[in-house]
Amino acid sequence: MTAKSGRLIGVGVGPGDPELMTLKAARALRDADVIAYFAKAGNPSHSRATIAQYLRAGIVELPLAYPVTTELPKCSASYRDALDDFYRRAADEIGGHLAAGRTVAVICEGDPLFYGSYMHLHARLAPHFPSEVIAGVSGMSGCWSAAGMPIAQGDDVFTVVPATLPEDELVRRLADADAAVVMKVGQHLAKVRRALKRSGRLPRALYVERGTMVEEKLMPLAAKSDDQAPYFAVVLVPGWEQRPEAKP
Amino acid sequence: MTAKSGRLIGVGVGPGDPELMTLKAARALRDADVIAYFAKAGNPSHSRATIAQYLRAGIVELPLAYPVTTELPKCSASYRDALDDFYRRAADEIGGHLAAGRTVAVICEGDPLFYGSYMHLHARLAPHFPSEVIAGVSGMSGCWSAAGMPIAQGDDVFTVVPATLPEDELVRRLADADAAVVMKVGQHLAKVRRALKRSGRLPRALYVERGTMVEEKLMPLAAKSDDQAPYFAVVLVPGWEQRPEAKP
Repeated sequence: MTAKSGRLIGVGVGPGDPELMTLKAARALRDADVIAYFAKAGNPSHSRATIAQYLRAGIVELPLAYPVTTELPKCSASYRDALDDFYRRAADEIGGHLAAGRTVAVICEGDPLFYGSYMHLHARLAPHFPSEVIAGVSGMSGCWSAAGMPIAQGDDVFTVVPATLPEDELVRRLADADAAVVMKVGQHLAKVRRALKRSGRLPRALYVERGTMVEEKLMPLAAKSDDQAPYFAVVLVPGWEQRPEAKP
Repeated sequence: MTAKSGRLIGVGVGPGDPELMTLKAARALRDADVIAYFAKAGNPSHSRATIAQYLRAGIVELPLAYPVTTELPKCSASYRDALDDFYRRAADEIGGHLAAGRTVAVICEGDPLFYGSYMHLHARLAPHFPSEVIAGVSGMSGCWSAAGMPIAQGDDVFTVVPATLPEDELVRRLADADAAVVMKVGQHLAKVRRALKRSGRLPRALYVERGTMVEEKLMPLAAKSDDQAPYFAVVLVPGWEQRPEAKP
């Protein structure tokens, strides 16, 4: 029945470890007629790699390759237009499958509606087709769990900041939060390190690359000797100042 | 082998829908010798209810009943001492099982290290026994996914604030974030509503009770006509102002 209903499903597949997918996501993958996933043109899809072992033989695959946009500045209107056009065409293609009665599972790293590209499809398609979103374990949850590091507790204020913010703004926001995660560290690591130092948070900061994956790297940011980081690296700043092991 | 190693496992069981547990959590429950869970004295445990259908026959159960503390003000030293004493005794009891070579799975609503009580046990026990934390889907992810509401996107700053903060502080923090979640709404709903209004965020705010559970309730906060809310209710304030359906 489900297979006949032309349903759009945003499926969170979690932070990278295939076992951190939910039972519901595994069921959605078994029942889908089509799976769709984002990837950079010419690169393998992270989300597809995560679920490869759960893929049903004969399922239709619909890769959605981001346009190559490295030549355009990110804040430019032409960059925005190129992405807009890409999401519109991807939504049209998925809409064709849905209109033909096929269930399409869009597999998403982490949690689909938390900083995920899926929301661009959801906003365009959910008004026209039955849809469902299956929550996933976020990338950052995977990171602090892999580190065994309690991130926020009790009445802590917890903030997620993108590393793209100007340095002064990072300092202000880091100093104003009890606990924080800095996302999309990549080429901004030197700036992030300065902002953590200026806000007094550097001694607590943990650097994480590819959390929960085979290639996982964890270290105090203060111990990382270079300023090289991949785009998806994060920095965790735990709250909970009154933790028991810190007591005299 | 695992069953002989005296391992402590913090198991996130997700937001309430039993299918939103991870494959890894399901495996940990199958392999554990003992499961432990928090509950208010005299109340059933939410996390145990979530995983009831996956429990192996004959597993040893260790309920950890929070002391009844309603007579003590939350910020008082006697309240903190009572809780401290409770966590210490719970850790001692679990430590006894670990020392005897039993694997203990502490099942946790949502994600264990994100505002979870498990971290009080982890901080006391992880320095002395092998331990692992299995990330879970957070309660708030369950809520925005159930609502089909993209919460944060691109360079949004996302903030989690407890409803216990003073009203002016709530206003300041809500106005300063692109996207926000207000937690532990309970008896603070009237204040939260005023703070959202003053920060200009009320029209976007969504009220969620028991997200992903059978008794789930979702509505625009502006449409909720009373100021009654359970402790675990949350208010979601989505970011992403430039979403495509909002375009002319």
